[in-house]
Amino acid sequence: MYLSKVVGSVWMTQKEKGMENLKLLIVQPLNLDRKLEGNAVIAVDRIGAGVGEIVLITSGTPAQRILGDRISPIDAAVVGIVDSFEVNQ
Amino acid sequence: MYLSKVVGSVWMTQKEKGMENLKLLIVQPLNLDRKLEGNAVIAVDRIGAGVGEIVLITSGTPAQRILGDRISPIDAAVVGIVDSFEVNQ
Amino acid sequence: MYLSKVVGSVWMTQKEKGMENLKLLIVQPLNLDRKLEGNAVIAVDRIGAGVGEIVLITSGTPAQRILGDRISPIDAAVVGIVDSFEVNQ
Amino acid sequence: MYLSKVVGSVWMTQKEKGMENLKLLIVQPLNLDRKLEGNAVIAVDRIGAGVGEIVLITSGTPAQRILGDRISPIDAAVVGIVDSFEVNQ
Amino acid sequence: MYLSKVVGSVWMTQKEKGMENLKLLIVQPLNLDRKLEGNAVIAVDRIGAGVGEIVLITSGTPAQRILGDRISPIDAAVVGIVDSFEVNQ
Repeated sequence: MYLSKVVGSVWMTQKEKGMENLKLLIVQPLNLDRKLEGNAVIAVDRIGAGVGEIVLITSGTPAQRILGDRISPIDAAVVGIVDSFEVNQ
Repeated sequence: MYLSKVVGSVWMTQKEKGMENLKLLIVQPLNLDRKLEGNAVIAVDRIGAGVGEIVLITSGTPAQRILGDRISPIDAAVVGIVDSFEVNQ
Repeated sequence: MYLSKVVGSVWMTQKEKGMENLKLLIVQPLNLDRKLEGNAVIAVDRIGAGVGEIVLITSGTPAQRILGDRISPIDAAVVGIVDSFEVNQ
Repeated sequence: MYLSKVVGSVWMTQKEKGMENLKLLIVQPLNLDRKLEGNAVIAVDRIGAGVGEIVLITSGTPAQRILGDRISPIDAAVVGIVDSFEVNQ
Repeated sequence: MYLSKVVGSVWMTQKEKGMENLKLLIVQPLNLDRKLEGNAVIAVDRIGAGVGEIVLITSGTPAQRILGDRISPIDAAVVGIVDSFEVNQ
């Protein structure tokens, strides 16, 4: 999992089975100095994250767990909205 | 998942079981400034995406979900054609 | 798996199902010269690792194994606290 | 999946269960200008690809699908020999 | 899978369930000129690889196959000791 900032949204009409009614956020990884760094990712959000918030992203097959038994091809998901984090390098 | 642009097609005659009758697109990741960036990927498309369109790509085992119970070794798929996206960094 | 140093912690109140009661550490990969290198990762810890310790991190679906049958979307976990390592390049 | 060129072969006598009787090719990713780029990968080939040919490579758990029910730890496979590809960036 | 050289070992006392009695090697990717390149990885070895030997490494869920039905969070494994490899770029 990695820290990211929510920086936008994506809209699609024509899509695969299993992609219906999913909110898609654009998130960008955040380094430990709280600066955006690296490639943007499109992640499914079901917990109400908004633009500007720091979120925790999970990738790959584990991301499918947030949808329970529903069959969907998603490979990235928001799993939490970060209250705070502390670094002691 | 990540945003990509469809930039081409691939044709194969000699292939593995499970690769029959699949349309294979060459897609290249798009950064948030809508510029092509990073390595091209070959993704299966079943929703009719065409060259020049922006699509959403899923990777790994989740990509297999678009084929239902069919057994196939694919690891990348188009899961939607992007209508629009908005960035507020 | 790769060697990392524990450099911090993350706290979240609003989160997905399966993320309850998990201790989340910020870990950063360590190269063979014992210097921090590369992007920080958020990993679940159940064995009591603390800031400054060197740990072994596993990624992806295998990380879910540390939770047994519990359903959770985690994709990274601490699987050991490193006593020592020896390099002969 | 990604395009690669077959550039060599690997031989092993001492190996894990499930690695018996597998032809192992060294393949190197090919960019859209048909130049070799990036790290070489060792992939299992069951369709007769030879040195100099352009092939399509699949990675991770999906690669295991080419072996059917056979248990094997492979994570990369040749899934087709490319006849041609067309790029319109 | 990729070629690596065995460059060391890791010892851990405090560890997760499923990590008991596993020999952990430090391996570093080898490019086609037989030079070390890229980040070191910790892989499980069950076939007796030693420091200085060239081995084949598998990653992710497929690595778990070397342990059979045993539940373990490992994500990298030695699947063979390389006798020789030949490159014709």
